[in-house]
Amino acid sequence: MDKELDELKGKLQEAFREATKIYRNRGFQRRIGFGRKPALINVDLANAWTRPGNPFTCENIDEQIIPGVQELMKSCREHNHLIVHVTTCFQNTDRNDPHTDMGLWHNKIPVEAVNQKDTSLWAIDTRIAPRDGEHVLIKKGASAFHGTYLSGYLRSAGIDTILVTGVTATACVRETICDGLAEGFRPIAVRECIGDRIPGAVDWNLFDIDAKFGDVVSLSDCKNFLDTINFRND
Amino acid sequence: MDKELDELKGKLQEAFREATKIYRNRGFQRRIGFGRKPALINVDLANAWTRPGNPFTCENIDEQIIPGVQELMKSCREHNHLIVHVTTCFQNTDRNDPHTDMGLWHNKIPVEAVNQKDTSLWAIDTRIAPRDGEHVLIKKGASAFHGTYLSGYLRSAGIDTILVTGVTATACVRETICDGLAEGFRPIAVRECIGDRIPGAVDWNLFDIDAKFGDVVSLSDCKNFLDTINFRND
Amino acid sequence: MDKELDELKGKLQEAFREATKIYRNRGFQRRIGFGRKPALINVDLANAWTRPGNPFTCENIDEQIIPGVQELMKSCREHNHLIVHVTTCFQNTDRNDPHTDMGLWHNKIPVEAVNQKDTSLWAIDTRIAPRDGEHVLIKKGASAFHGTYLSGYLRSAGIDTILVTGVTATACVRETICDGLAEGFRPIAVRECIGDRIPGAVDWNLFDIDAKFGDVVSLSDCKNFLDTINFRND
Amino acid sequence: MDKELDELKGKLQEAFREATKIYRNRGFQRRIGFGRKPALINVDLANAWTRPGNPFTCENIDEQIIPGVQELMKSCREHNHLIVHVTTCFQNTDRNDPHTDMGLWHNKIPVEAVNQKDTSLWAIDTRIAPRDGEHVLIKKGASAFHGTYLSGYLRSAGIDTILVTGVTATACVRETICDGLAEGFRPIAVRECIGDRIPGAVDWNLFDIDAKFGDVVSLSDCKNFLDTINFRND
Repeated sequence: MDKELDELKGKLQEAFREATKIYRNRGFQRRIGFGRKPALINVDLANAWTRPGNPFTCENIDEQIIPGVQELMKSCREHNHLIVHVTTCFQNTDRNDPHTDMGLWHNKIPVEAVNQKDTSLWAIDTRIAPRDGEHVLIKKGASAFHGTYLSGYLRSAGIDTILVTGVTATACVRETICDGLAEGFRPIAVRECIGDRIPGAVDWNLFDIDAKFGDVVSLSDCKNFLDTINFRND
Repeated sequence: MDKELDELKGKLQEAFREATKIYRNRGFQRRIGFGRKPALINVDLANAWTRPGNPFTCENIDEQIIPGVQELMKSCREHNHLIVHVTTCFQNTDRNDPHTDMGLWHNKIPVEAVNQKDTSLWAIDTRIAPRDGEHVLIKKGASAFHGTYLSGYLRSAGIDTILVTGVTATACVRETICDGLAEGFRPIAVRECIGDRIPGAVDWNLFDIDAKFGDVVSLSDCKNFLDTINFRND
Repeated sequence: MDKELDELKGKLQEAFREATKIYRNRGFQRRIGFGRKPALINVDLANAWTRPGNPFTCENIDEQIIPGVQELMKSCREHNHLIVHVTTCFQNTDRNDPHTDMGLWHNKIPVEAVNQKDTSLWAIDTRIAPRDGEHVLIKKGASAFHGTYLSGYLRSAGIDTILVTGVTATACVRETICDGLAEGFRPIAVRECIGDRIPGAVDWNLFDIDAKFGDVVSLSDCKNFLDTINFRND
Repeated sequence: MDKELDELKGKLQEAFREATKIYRNRGFQRRIGFGRKPALINVDLANAWTRPGNPFTCENIDEQIIPGVQELMKSCREHNHLIVHVTTCFQNTDRNDPHTDMGLWHNKIPVEAVNQKDTSLWAIDTRIAPRDGEHVLIKKGASAFHGTYLSGYLRSAGIDTILVTGVTATACVRETICDGLAEGFRPIAVRECIGDRIPGAVDWNLFDIDAKFGDVVSLSDCKNFLDTINFRND
């Protein structure tokens, strides 16, 4: 399995190098850069995704994603940058009830696993728990923007840049980044803080994102930006 | 005051008659009619709006709006029509915190009066309390559609018609109706079940709605529709 | 008719005074104020609305609204403030074709009168014609925000304040202001530059707007803001 | 290059088989199925994407995608199913003008290559040209839903299923499918009719789509559905 994963990742890197030639030649893969007023958007770092035993459980949570997000949150709190904690749950998870608020999504993925009544499923992971005054956004779909008030909220606060972390690269993180760009925010994908649950998915989704929708940037560069942007704006 | 209100209402009726001539002559004030699959949308019939003592408290709640909505809900439950209970609240009501989820609205109206921590404020009025499986939608703005997943939810359930009740005619009811039309639903304003808190506001807002955005229909006609539509669809 | 209109307006002013007492006492009718980076949004100042002979023709266009908007545009162009020219038209105005892009709106108002093929109908009035580089936004519904890219466009340009002019107070202007607020912009209704086609409608809609959604401000104060904001930001 | 592409595709198929085990085991990759009233959504099959010589030019257009879409359109026209022709262009493509309607997207990809003044760039490919009454939707971002009136338009027409074709798998097709699902429509990706411009991108994006957002279905099954659904609904 590890050998296969290595081979897959090698093959993908080769493909990305070829694609990069085409993209650069045509003017894709430009840098959007950081703006002047950031928000940190943590997507679905709630128990159903961060803890073992759920259909939504993801990889690399404990050793990589949570510690990275903790660092970013520390910077945000020190410098009073806005933090939004995003999670997903449903009031009516009866797949036979045509009035379920799962909409049509339960016809593709097991969203019935996150009932709103069981807070332990959709609560933000205690290791990166929201502080008083930080916003918890409950969504019903993949994107943290589509079908929510997030764009108006961020604009009201004067935000121009979103640093996005969380899971999954394939769905909620990618959709949040695509919509964030369309809503007029500079999306930054924090490379080490984005996960998924199948081999290769983080790689090809970050590649697509970086080519077309937002910059994929290292944790340390993101942290440095958060720590210095107020100073630079003075 | 009562005499003044009567005079105002008389003057408004005169104005509406004049306006109706202009509108009809030009092809406004058409009937959109009922469709085939309705949902009942109760807007902000939560304690802060239905009970005394809050800045948001409205008129005609106990004697008119709640009993009317109870009748509609009875029909919906008997015939398994979808019901959405809409309410409004905010996680951070500190007007000095630029990160408040009140956005910019607290710069116009006292939304700081509905903090999410105090459930008694934003809970749906117990007289029309949601049953298990009925959806409670929390919104941050006036419209039940804008910045929410309502359109996708209703479409997933095959809804084509929305019967709208609640408060206020000036803001949340009107916005919900305007957006409902734009999202492709037939909006029906249930005349006796819509309220406000200032004299005349229900009159001029229902007049505008009926001219351009949705039909204003009596409670009894709405109830009759809810009671017979399944039968008619057979 | 003039006497009747005077009486109506008098009665409305009385009602607004009463309502203002209630609103102020409860914390409504607050001032949202100007921000730091404005855009001018001219709503439906296209021929079908500004010229005689169309179902959509409005009042007070030649003598008041157009001259006012000309003044605002002069200031915007001098100081390089963003201008958006909004208009409305439809590709398929056959009311019997279920695939018409009029959606359901033709079941309320005569939108079949503005076919996209006849540019003369939906073109912006030549007296306030767009210059090269100024944006013309075609919409299908009442709001310039709902179902359009306007919010993302404005946010990309760093806009925080929208000065709204045009027609009608009842529909497209009001909806644009309500949605603008929800999307995180400070809405300013330019009092002299907003029109309608029925007696009283401008009065009661501006009253509602000012109470809850945006500030109603005089043309001269708006012009002064546009002329000095760059200077004040330095 | 062909050998490398074969190896990449082989490696990806292996990875998809592994991922499918995980997904199936956890309840992903469910079938959403066809509904009862379809629309065909052709995404960005306009000259800049279908003809040689543009930064946006895609692969497999002439030999595969256009002929497939022609077949689908034939069925739609015979059975009066709704067709939406989607394209993308911008009024102001000056990257130095902060008021450009490209928003922030030109900071990632070369959208300045599609100026609205040059119709030849954004016109729908003549081989699949719109007929009178079929809708042409101009969008500014990746998704045909986000920032457009498409959801309201489709709902007004009673549509419950969208068959999506066009380019690119990475961006506009994928975003349209994700948003279509969230808006309450059953998304079907027509396998042979979706393209891109870099090796592997169609494969990994269709895999992600099929796992989570919509069914990837063969052209012949889609055609059969379009040809028989009216009959089945009787």
